[in-house]
Amino acid sequence: MPKKVTIRFEPEGRKVLAKPGTTVLEASKRAGVGIRSECGGKHSCGKCRVIIEDQSNMTGVSDHETEFLTPEELGHGYRLACSSAAVEGELTVFIPSETRKGKPRIQVEGMERPVKLDPAVKRVHLLLARPTLHDTTNDYGRLLDAMRHTGFRQLEMDHELLKSLPDSLRNAKWDITVTIWNNKRIISVEEGNSEDINYGFSVDIGTSKIAGYLVDLVSGNVVSIQSLENPQMVYGEDIISRINYALTDGAALKKLQATVVEAINSLIHNACKQVGANPDTVFEITVVGNTAMHHFFLGIEPKYLAVAPYVPAVTKPLDITANSLNIMANPLANVHLLPVVAGFVGSDAIADVIATGIYETNKMCLLIDIGTNGEVFVGNREDIVSCSCAAGPAFEGMHIEHGMKARTGAIERVRVDPETYEVSYETIGGSKPLGICGSGIVDAIAEMLRCGITGQRGGINRDIETKRLVRVNNEPRFVIAWKRETGIGRDVTVSGKDIQEIQLAKAAIHTGAAILMNEKGVKDDQIDQVYIAGAFGSYINPENARFIGLIPDVPTQRIDFVGNTAISGAKMVLISNQMRKRAETLSKQIRYVELMTAPGFHREFRDSMFLPHRDATRYPTVMSHLRRRGS
Amino acid sequence: MPKKVTIRFEPEGRKVLAKPGTTVLEASKRAGVGIRSECGGKHSCGKCRVIIEDQSNMTGVSDHETEFLTPEELGHGYRLACSSAAVEGELTVFIPSETRKGKPRIQVEGMERPVKLDPAVKRVHLLLARPTLHDTTNDYGRLLDAMRHTGFRQLEMDHELLKSLPDSLRNAKWDITVTIWNNKRIISVEEGNSEDINYGFSVDIGTSKIAGYLVDLVSGNVVSIQSLENPQMVYGEDIISRINYALTDGAALKKLQATVVEAINSLIHNACKQVGANPDTVFEITVVGNTAMHHFFLGIEPKYLAVAPYVPAVTKPLDITANSLNIMANPLANVHLLPVVAGFVGSDAIADVIATGIYETNKMCLLIDIGTNGEVFVGNREDIVSCSCAAGPAFEGMHIEHGMKARTGAIERVRVDPETYEVSYETIGGSKPLGICGSGIVDAIAEMLRCGITGQRGGINRDIETKRLVRVNNEPRFVIAWKRETGIGRDVTVSGKDIQEIQLAKAAIHTGAAILMNEKGVKDDQIDQVYIAGAFGSYINPENARFIGLIPDVPTQRIDFVGNTAISGAKMVLISNQMRKRAETLSKQIRYVELMTAPGFHREFRDSMFLPHRDATRYPTVMSHLRRRGS
Repeated sequence: MPKKVTIRFEPEGRKVLAKPGTTVLEASKRAGVGIRSECGGKHSCGKCRVIIEDQSNMTGVSDHETEFLTPEELGHGYRLACSSAAVEGELTVFIPSETRKGKPRIQVEGMERPVKLDPAVKRVHLLLARPTLHDTTNDYGRLLDAMRHTGFRQLEMDHELLKSLPDSLRNAKWDITVTIWNNKRIISVEEGNSEDINYGFSVDIGTSKIAGYLVDLVSGNVVSIQSLENPQMVYGEDIISRINYALTDGAALKKLQATVVEAINSLIHNACKQVGANPDTVFEITVVGNTAMHHFFLGIEPKYLAVAPYVPAVTKPLDITANSLNIMANPLANVHLLPVVAGFVGSDAIADVIATGIYETNKMCLLIDIGTNGEVFVGNREDIVSCSCAAGPAFEGMHIEHGMKARTGAIERVRVDPETYEVSYETIGGSKPLGICGSGIVDAIAEMLRCGITGQRGGINRDIETKRLVRVNNEPRFVIAWKRETGIGRDVTVSGKDIQEIQLAKAAIHTGAAILMNEKGVKDDQIDQVYIAGAFGSYINPENARFIGLIPDVPTQRIDFVGNTAISGAKMVLISNQMRKRAETLSKQIRYVELMTAPGFHREFRDSMFLPHRDATRYPTVMSHLRRRGS
Repeated sequence: MPKKVTIRFEPEGRKVLAKPGTTVLEASKRAGVGIRSECGGKHSCGKCRVIIEDQSNMTGVSDHETEFLTPEELGHGYRLACSSAAVEGELTVFIPSETRKGKPRIQVEGMERPVKLDPAVKRVHLLLARPTLHDTTNDYGRLLDAMRHTGFRQLEMDHELLKSLPDSLRNAKWDITVTIWNNKRIISVEEGNSEDINYGFSVDIGTSKIAGYLVDLVSGNVVSIQSLENPQMVYGEDIISRINYALTDGAALKKLQATVVEAINSLIHNACKQVGANPDTVFEITVVGNTAMHHFFLGIEPKYLAVAPYVPAVTKPLDITANSLNIMANPLANVHLLPVVAGFVGSDAIADVIATGIYETNKMCLLIDIGTNGEVFVGNREDIVSCSCAAGPAFEGMHIEHGMKARTGAIERVRVDPETYEVSYETIGGSKPLGICGSGIVDAIAEMLRCGITGQRGGINRDIETKRLVRVNNEPRFVIAWKRETGIGRDVTVSGKDIQEIQLAKAAIHTGAAILMNEKGVKDDQIDQVYIAGAFGSYINPENARFIGLIPDVPTQRIDFVGNTAISGAKMVLISNQMRKRAETLSKQIRYVELMTAPGFHREFRDSMFLPHRDATRYPTVMSHLRRRGS
């Protein structure tokens, strides 16, 4: 047997075996991973850019690559998939977002409640009197005097702005628009009247995805929505591996920080370009993210987040100027970091609470934000408890053999006929299936459970008689789409291992919810409202989510999918000082429950691994269906 | 007659004519300008470093020079005096402080009043509880909680410090000393107990000289005194020429700023070295200077200071972190700029007022700070008026043919026998005369006036019969020291032009005082106290100063020389919050009088040009002496 090389594609983790010399582009096709290539591999488009950190097992840089990639890019591990190949051993290839084939379906928007428009940034037009020999008031004093007449007192000005103030005032012929942040800092002085130009930006730094809203602070409206994959993925797909990367050397943390800053800058740039705004007119940026993302963004030592007792460096809200963070907005724009609750309940979770308003309702709420790291809240206006659960990225299609992100070609809906086991499915964009995304896999497993193809413990029931039950490497798999139907030249299947990945992920979330409900003394039927936040949640079938035990057995009309409430909460804080204060209060009031030390954690986790749960009484709706079928 | 070249030495402005090819070192000897040269011109010591901005009329860079000077230095115009010569035309050579021969006599200390020790910087030792799974308070929150118990609330911490806080706390095993500025900012977190190490630094940026005090903030004592020539001298000896330089191109202002910052850094470095302190333990720096120096230091556009209506960019006190100004103290040390009164009455003048305490006395005070730019105050606790007068640097020996700074070899005391016109003098350090410094020239002119060698209008009385009356270029000069006595191989003389320079300087100051006294309705005999501040003032003979009309005709017991009150005032503000507040109040209360638009300015200036004054009734003491002699 000839020697083979292994090529692994990240962030999906899909592997293919190939002959040495097979190009990365060819291998990607066989792996069902879409890499953009406009020239079809003819080395003439330069679009098939991939990142390969360890290049020891591969071919050297070709002339094609030096033509399309800068020395900096080559230094960062960029290669062209068409011109690079594995020589021996294993190769790990990271596909950056811009190289992905197919349009990603990204849920950026989230539930948002109306708030009074009262941003921290205000713009005031002034006509100053010119100095004369009889009025030699200094420039700054003259400006402050005029500001006092418009009701602003105790203002300060950054040294950088002061340096050019004499010229700014005279070039503007004393006719200026002043930008004030938080009624205390003057952050810009511009020529003429531009009171009606005032932008803010909200950012949600997710472990996998970064989303941004450009907001017109005059109207309070979102004018552009942007998002991209978190480019830190190159340094590890989950929080812990990125923290470990940060420990590798002194420059690693700086690299993680620079990477996310660059990504945010490109979101701001693209948003401004879309609406024809100057990034200098973006005067405030609100930022949310889990605690690790928060620390990375600020360049704060993250290592103690990963070891007991998992203590964050800081939880209170922070205000830092854009220039000191290298954010490309107005240099003196304020970057407001929303407060954090705990080491694994970040400011994105605070934003979820703000956006859904669970802190001001009498209803008993369960709020679950499903992401690589899941956060769960139980409570209402009286008291809220929170926890974090390491769900992992399975719901984003990772660690699933044919899993993929929600892009064109992903199977997102699955039905299985309980009699014939025949499958019907829908793909994103209606094109040939390339793989299966989070909502698709939840559907598939729920349907397989309904039809008895899998059981309460997971696995594949080998007794089922259908040609859709196939064996690959002696492991049974259930075929969702036949090779002839797919775009990858292979069957798209669900394996026992895939089911187990989803069991682990859903158990983590369910355990968090169960422990919190226990802490509050609340039973499933006392939950008045379930909010499912996070991009994944927006496309999931609620009945199927309940069927596999991801969420408790409550009537579906009590379940609401609220989308990316992290970004909508960040936007509410951007336009409302009241919400900003509320976020700070909440960060102190929300109680954090450490799951690892919670009584009953291990038993609950083990029981939650069952589909839907080991304790049949917890899922009466689902169990009655299963019993009917079983009978 | 063979062609000659002119070599001009700055900052004195002394010129010599020489044959083309005469080295700068040789020329400097003939000009009586001391240039350090340990090898005696043998090209082997590299000490005779001078700065020549325009090198178009001179020899190229020699091998000796490339050996001793770095490419950067050569780029900045540095040359060796032993290895460079003028070829044609004129050459302007600037002699930096370190190249000066002879020890400068610098008056750094000034009058200081006792104040309650209450610096803005406080140090607190803390033992924090370690975090556990039952106490997962974040690091910053833990620190703030402990600080609250010691009475500090509402503290903030710089983002830079926050970045390393997790490691700082753990490396210190939670046993730390925290530095707090102004009860609001945490500026350092250090391992162990170092409450008793706490330094501050005060700086007076003079047009000609920069002085610094290193202050132990635990005791309030000055532990090191440092000073050096303001290296901005290369870019112009007075304020206006430096402002003009700043306008030459975009980089010029940055260069002026960098130059003064570098000088202050060397003062801090030397002071810390002297007492074995780490510059990182310098937590606050107070800075005073005239308004142009203040603007240069901050890199603020200075051009509008030089054109009517002479408006400063800012007058209020400013607080800026050391790192943003590139000051080499603790990176987060606060740099406090004392407030400014007006375009030409700077924070050095506020410091004079603080140090002398004229704002809290009932006595009517006249305060004169004599420097390149003179500031004058008249008033007491009820009201103070101020003005600025362009005295120029004549009192520092500049623009005087044989003038020199107060260094070894400068004639500082002069007596002329009224009968024989014979002269006795004293030099600094008792060595052979090289020239005459400010106090020497005041003495000489007062004595010449007493003896009738000069008259009330100035000039040299050609009718005096003495061989000390000599002619050079057909202009009469009075010989103070004969060639055989001097160290320069030439007579040290006083010319009519020299007298005129001093007349202009003293007229400027007297006019300022007279206009202010007029503004307050105060006559000479109503002045209870005269304070003469500034380095020059410390060595002057008060009777002679009054005799030439530099100060009003008040009894000598009412005249006090208070030295460098700019630096002592800056030090008082460094150690006392109360004084800091007082400085701010004073900057708003002190009234500024613009001399150019003051009624009677031109007449008063013309009258003040007389020795001592055109109006005999204003100087009864002096006039009675002159009349006695005249009779």
